[in-house]
Amino acid sequence: MNEYSSKLLENTVNELSRLPGIGKKTALRLSLYILKEEELFAEKLGDSIIKMRREIQFCKRCNNISDNELCEICANHKRDENTVCVVEDTRDVMAIENTAQFNGLYHVLGGIINPMEGIGPNDIAIKHLVERINTEDIKEIILALPATVEGDTTNYYIYKLIKNFNLKVTSIARGVAIGDELEYTDEITLGRSILNRLPFEG
Amino acid sequence: MNEYSSKLLENTVNELSRLPGIGKKTALRLSLYILKEEELFAEKLGDSIIKMRREIQFCKRCNNISDNELCEICANHKRDENTVCVVEDTRDVMAIENTAQFNGLYHVLGGIINPMEGIGPNDIAIKHLVERINTEDIKEIILALPATVEGDTTNYYIYKLIKNFNLKVTSIARGVAIGDELEYTDEITLGRSILNRLPFEG
Repeated sequence: MNEYSSKLLENTVNELSRLPGIGKKTALRLSLYILKEEELFAEKLGDSIIKMRREIQFCKRCNNISDNELCEICANHKRDENTVCVVEDTRDVMAIENTAQFNGLYHVLGGIINPMEGIGPNDIAIKHLVERINTEDIKEIILALPATVEGDTTNYYIYKLIKNFNLKVTSIARGVAIGDELEYTDEITLGRSILNRLPFEG
Repeated sequence: MNEYSSKLLENTVNELSRLPGIGKKTALRLSLYILKEEELFAEKLGDSIIKMRREIQFCKRCNNISDNELCEICANHKRDENTVCVVEDTRDVMAIENTAQFNGLYHVLGGIINPMEGIGPNDIAIKHLVERINTEDIKEIILALPATVEGDTTNYYIYKLIKNFNLKVTSIARGVAIGDELEYTDEITLGRSILNRLPFEG
């Protein structure tokens, strides 16, 4: 006999457990939850997944996930088109938008260079970024990739490609987080925050 | 502007985060993973959920999840029809089947009595169990519900209903798990295991 009492259940458990961070036990728990809910619940969940994957677009300008050819940010003429912030994925756009401190445009790479996972420069939207620099009136590129080996590698790769264009290349500030105690800040962050110290604004 | 750059994405995040244990952040991570995979991945996942919910059946005899009117266990004539093990849900059936120590049939309640969550005796398959006792040739009922207040309440409720039938009512043994050290066993389990001590089989 099969471990699951139903092929239908087994199938859903298998599909759900293909998702990252979802093991067989969690997938079974989720499947049993879906079975207890109304049929409409399963339909809305399943349909939303299929429809999203089928109809999603990527903004032809910034490569962010979008429902249209041009995303809401790129289509907004009040944004500063001279400043472009380069990020890994749409979650970073959301995080920066939530700060309400940035009024420029974005460029979403859709990943970072990661040789261990077989992701090279051509697998992410770097060429697309260079095209934008060639055709748009960009005056500053802000690199806002993660502070990891892969992020630094990607930063460096992009920097080499674009350093000869007539534009400013900056990187978001790294340092001790607001509200953090020095004694609990990791050494590398604390070290960088001393090296990159700023004039005191009294 | 909306927090998500796409309504399609937002919709999937909302649906996924209705699942237990899945918050908005996890739902977003899962949605972005689905977007990176082939369209077939999303289709198989979504279709399996919808199809499962639409087509699943509950065994008319034991109430276990099934693809047919009668589940594989109930349809198997080699199983001992005189012994019925009462469990909370299909996961318990899977756990007991994995031990290969039980050859009887099951009765899946589909929940346990839990007044805090508004689950009463009529919300689970207790009446169905009594009908089985009336119509089938059951000689022993094994109660295998969780060792919690709710499990004990349900056990007691069932016991009161069926104690006057001509059958044996037993409960699975509680005690120190095989391989567990006494000093790390909780007091209640250890206390019960002393009270329910068995003749030593030398």
